[in-house]
Amino acid sequence: MIKVALCGVGYWGRNLLRVLSSNPGIQLAAIVDTRLEVRERLAQSFPSAAIYEDASSVILDPNIDAMVIATPVSSHYSLAKAGLDAGKHVMIEKPMCGSSEEAEDLVARAKAYGLTLMVDHTFLFHPAVRKLRDLVASGTLGHISYFDSQRVNLGLFQPDVNVLWDLAPHDLSILDYRFAAEPVSVEASGYCHVNDKSPDIAYITLHYENSMVAHLNLSWMSPVKMRRIALGGSKQMAVWDDLNRDEPVKIYDSGITIHSNQDREINLPNYRIGAVTSPRISGPEPLTEVVEHLRRSILGQERCQTDGDFGLRIVRTLERAQSALECSLQQVACSKRNTFNIIAAE
Amino acid sequence: MIKVALCGVGYWGRNLLRVLSSNPGIQLAAIVDTRLEVRERLAQSFPSAAIYEDASSVILDPNIDAMVIATPVSSHYSLAKAGLDAGKHVMIEKPMCGSSEEAEDLVARAKAYGLTLMVDHTFLFHPAVRKLRDLVASGTLGHISYFDSQRVNLGLFQPDVNVLWDLAPHDLSILDYRFAAEPVSVEASGYCHVNDKSPDIAYITLHYENSMVAHLNLSWMSPVKMRRIALGGSKQMAVWDDLNRDEPVKIYDSGITIHSNQDREINLPNYRIGAVTSPRISGPEPLTEVVEHLRRSILGQERCQTDGDFGLRIVRTLERAQSALECSLQQVACSKRNTFNIIAAE
Amino acid sequence: MIKVALCGVGYWGRNLLRVLSSNPGIQLAAIVDTRLEVRERLAQSFPSAAIYEDASSVILDPNIDAMVIATPVSSHYSLAKAGLDAGKHVMIEKPMCGSSEEAEDLVARAKAYGLTLMVDHTFLFHPAVRKLRDLVASGTLGHISYFDSQRVNLGLFQPDVNVLWDLAPHDLSILDYRFAAEPVSVEASGYCHVNDKSPDIAYITLHYENSMVAHLNLSWMSPVKMRRIALGGSKQMAVWDDLNRDEPVKIYDSGITIHSNQDREINLPNYRIGAVTSPRISGPEPLTEVVEHLRRSILGQERCQTDGDFGLRIVRTLERAQSALECSLQQVACSKRNTFNIIAAE
Amino acid sequence: MIKVALCGVGYWGRNLLRVLSSNPGIQLAAIVDTRLEVRERLAQSFPSAAIYEDASSVILDPNIDAMVIATPVSSHYSLAKAGLDAGKHVMIEKPMCGSSEEAEDLVARAKAYGLTLMVDHTFLFHPAVRKLRDLVASGTLGHISYFDSQRVNLGLFQPDVNVLWDLAPHDLSILDYRFAAEPVSVEASGYCHVNDKSPDIAYITLHYENSMVAHLNLSWMSPVKMRRIALGGSKQMAVWDDLNRDEPVKIYDSGITIHSNQDREINLPNYRIGAVTSPRISGPEPLTEVVEHLRRSILGQERCQTDGDFGLRIVRTLERAQSALECSLQQVACSKRNTFNIIAAE
Repeated sequence: MIKVALCGVGYWGRNLLRVLSSNPGIQLAAIVDTRLEVRERLAQSFPSAAIYEDASSVILDPNIDAMVIATPVSSHYSLAKAGLDAGKHVMIEKPMCGSSEEAEDLVARAKAYGLTLMVDHTFLFHPAVRKLRDLVASGTLGHISYFDSQRVNLGLFQPDVNVLWDLAPHDLSILDYRFAAEPVSVEASGYCHVNDKSPDIAYITLHYENSMVAHLNLSWMSPVKMRRIALGGSKQMAVWDDLNRDEPVKIYDSGITIHSNQDREINLPNYRIGAVTSPRISGPEPLTEVVEHLRRSILGQERCQTDGDFGLRIVRTLERAQSALECSLQQVACSKRNTFNIIAAE
Repeated sequence: MIKVALCGVGYWGRNLLRVLSSNPGIQLAAIVDTRLEVRERLAQSFPSAAIYEDASSVILDPNIDAMVIATPVSSHYSLAKAGLDAGKHVMIEKPMCGSSEEAEDLVARAKAYGLTLMVDHTFLFHPAVRKLRDLVASGTLGHISYFDSQRVNLGLFQPDVNVLWDLAPHDLSILDYRFAAEPVSVEASGYCHVNDKSPDIAYITLHYENSMVAHLNLSWMSPVKMRRIALGGSKQMAVWDDLNRDEPVKIYDSGITIHSNQDREINLPNYRIGAVTSPRISGPEPLTEVVEHLRRSILGQERCQTDGDFGLRIVRTLERAQSALECSLQQVACSKRNTFNIIAAE
Repeated sequence: MIKVALCGVGYWGRNLLRVLSSNPGIQLAAIVDTRLEVRERLAQSFPSAAIYEDASSVILDPNIDAMVIATPVSSHYSLAKAGLDAGKHVMIEKPMCGSSEEAEDLVARAKAYGLTLMVDHTFLFHPAVRKLRDLVASGTLGHISYFDSQRVNLGLFQPDVNVLWDLAPHDLSILDYRFAAEPVSVEASGYCHVNDKSPDIAYITLHYENSMVAHLNLSWMSPVKMRRIALGGSKQMAVWDDLNRDEPVKIYDSGITIHSNQDREINLPNYRIGAVTSPRISGPEPLTEVVEHLRRSILGQERCQTDGDFGLRIVRTLERAQSALECSLQQVACSKRNTFNIIAAE
Repeated sequence: MIKVALCGVGYWGRNLLRVLSSNPGIQLAAIVDTRLEVRERLAQSFPSAAIYEDASSVILDPNIDAMVIATPVSSHYSLAKAGLDAGKHVMIEKPMCGSSEEAEDLVARAKAYGLTLMVDHTFLFHPAVRKLRDLVASGTLGHISYFDSQRVNLGLFQPDVNVLWDLAPHDLSILDYRFAAEPVSVEASGYCHVNDKSPDIAYITLHYENSMVAHLNLSWMSPVKMRRIALGGSKQMAVWDDLNRDEPVKIYDSGITIHSNQDREINLPNYRIGAVTSPRISGPEPLTEVVEHLRRSILGQERCQTDGDFGLRIVRTLERAQSALECSLQQVACSKRNTFNIIAAE
């Protein structure tokens, strides 16, 4: 029975609370939240758990085996570091940290102490993502030439992260999980409508070694919610539409065969358009799988799939995208100033 | 009765043939096509029209009032120039020319000669585009903060243009038509899967003076066809899905109100989610309107909406996007080489 | 604080448990379930409620003000009668009883005792149903000429009711709620695939006084789930698709105007096809509203909308449909026998 | 080269005109239409065809090999009889005749004379219908337990037929084509909104020998067009949605296995929910196939699939449905009168 403390019972923390408390191999030993009214409610519903205002109480409690950190991103590093230093296994919500420097430090500590450091990339435990992975791994789709994601909706604006850090980790975790390589180059553009320095729309293009291009269209400003990933392969193509209740994943037996043409300068493609198949997608709730995987990783029964190194790679790519995005925003601002100056001078 | 010659009876030329021949104010006086079997068929179906192998016959024919040019892009300039020099009005398929230099020269000639020079941007005569324009012009949507277009399908690869020149003119014409300004800055990325030098996927970001950002996702490699434009306004938002037969245009009474917050560092948005309305979209075939507009422009009854200056602006923006795209492709190639060298050196 | 006992914690009972226990004006005083393991779980989660194996304990408990009956249909009558006789208010799951005779008896007792007798037709508290009612009541749709419902899915087969008694109450409650009249005539056909005597597909046609026809297509055998009601009005038409997450209710500004034609034998209709509007549908969970309405009805603060008379009318219509259905099944069986005899005789 | 005369150039006749004139083995020798302005236009476009006001001219013309009759239903019989008597092959639009008596007479004459008598049930040449047939014939779906069709839209009201005779032939032809048997029993209900005696909404239930039930929901009063057929099989189920451009046919690997249960009174079904496959549906225009099949049937190269016997069976089932529908309408009218009398008497 692993004794776990949950730090933070916000939007996602509530889900962790439910799932942690129903895993038979886990004892929810402590819950931390800064809000008094939340703590009072927790005390009623979870009489056997210690309820704390401050995570330091968890750090000091020698009974706690593991900490699950679901607080704002800015506090991830200090909490996780304190937990690891106190000999506790740690799971952190995604994104792992606000910088790769912090993430690297956590990875080093966990390795030095021989502790489990996991990042909760729940998406990878989603049955549709597992299906996409199997389709790629089995060669069913052939060589993957593009990954195209549209992840747009109205809100929720978050005060401590921009749209890139909020939405891109989903796609980047799938890309890393599947293609096991960091991008060779990262391009970005976007716009800040609500807050000057914080993009609420971002377009990211990632180029990979093996002739694959990935594009993410991320927005907090769209009236229609879309959660759609298209994977183009040389043999088949697949689309996952997370809002399609009945047929979330579709596999298109369509493709392009390229004929190199010695007589002419250009290659001409042949199109093949075939059947569409929608496999049955079902399975347990992804977060249930995450928590069970955490338990087994701590017990050494499974190799942690989304360990610190994994979380670090995602943060590193986010940093590269953020840097490209800032560069683009500055150039655009500069162009606008120049345009203004030209107009003013005329 | 205006006497018109049609040059080129390819994919789009066939539609022009049908529409030109059924406009009661137009006499289809001549048809040009390089293919013998096409000319034989035309001779049977259009006994009253002259059928030529070469456009020079049209240039020399003093009876022809106007030329409609539906040949490959590379021939647009020379044909149009010859037509204008011979005193004929000219309509050219989009994109107008392969370079802005050529387009500028045609504009200058048409102005000098007092002839009508029109570019066939059929899209602008589509009832859904007119609806979108009305929604923006009337202020119904409020200030437009973004334009997001997805224009993807499988093929048709075209030998003389890449995906940018093939698909972007649709969006650029709507943007110009509506927002009456060229972009302040143009960013692009993409990929060449089938032919080394010719992108078949392109992502374009355009920034406009008035805090608007436009993004185009263009692809010849998608198994699912999508033709979708989203317009985000401060009051309402609109989406045109050209493949939605029943409700192509939807207006979302949803939006974001931004509260500047003196006490805090960040602005917090308020979301409003309301009804969705799908206005009835109907009207004559857009190309019929194009041809009638050409006729009236020639007769001086209407001011040409898609004149040479219009077509030139589109070409100029295409050139800027092409230049940004090439720059991106080179940088990526360079990054890949470096990555390879690093690996090789290790 | 009204003291309520819940009898039966099956599929729907679980929802009632959650909602009853979170209504601040209700004290969940007792819970009844025949299964030991269920009772053990309930004892843990609801330490302040009495947990009984048998509803008779509730009947005998003078502290209980009201009983909520969520047991199989066959037990509704005897439980409700005992409850009323013991002076308790009663809410019964739909369908109210297995026969109108039973339902009439309950209505008479509740009236005699001055107790609240309510039937849980949750559907009527659904915000989409309320929207439809408002559209009809306000005259927006004009005179309603038809009601067309498709309510099909794969299972769940229920041992104690057939597809008619399982699915039709939803539609019948909306029809009664809205049109406040019992049908003049009821026709039915159907089929028994799985069990000889128990239809799993049923087609019901109901004719109403005011030139309205209603048709229900009910099935437990469809691979695709559909929950769709269309309402045809003389001015506008409305469709509620319960599975359309984004736009569940659509109002079509389309209609038919009938021109009586003295010169000709037939009337010719004029079609009008206009915009489609999808109003925002939102509101509290319907069952929460049901339970609050029960509480207020018991306290005399509201007139019970789905009282015993209401439930009785639904049962009466179900009986008429059942009778028509049995008649149709017998005639078909007879036709088949005759066909067989003819073939055998030949 | 078969010399064909087309009688009637209305809505469907225009399509026949286009297809007949482009079949290389057919010479469109004559065209008949009662309207002067139509004949004038035809004379221009089809200079090599004789243009007649009256079909009697065709009957008298010994050069004509075959007549294609696309006139109103009421004239089908007399025209076809005259054609057959004059030794001409005949193809009639569906429904074949207004009564089975007429249809039987035509069948007898065609057999006596050894002439081809074909009914244009174009639907059966639709690639989606052929796919459904193959799925049934190959046993892929298993035993078919139900056929459920929804064929609703707004108009077109037709003066000489009601909604049953207009829309049901599509479904009945598929049912006959596929299941090769007439129904054992036919039930019907409906409503007459626009014209007293002519139903514009009809619900038809057909029972077949082999435990299959078919249901048709036919309407001219629906704001939303639907063209959807569901086929339930013991192994798999299939749905054809004619308005789904991308995936018209879907095959659901879902089903119900019935376990007979000796210990209990009822059978319990097991549900299986699997993948969905949408085969590629493509092929030539169905009407092109119809015309070519007519030509080959006349030449004796193919056995006519939709011959007079086929058309007769469809008419016979329409008559049975019409009779059931009239019976239902009378009973409802009677119930309403009685209700009125009861109310009046009170």
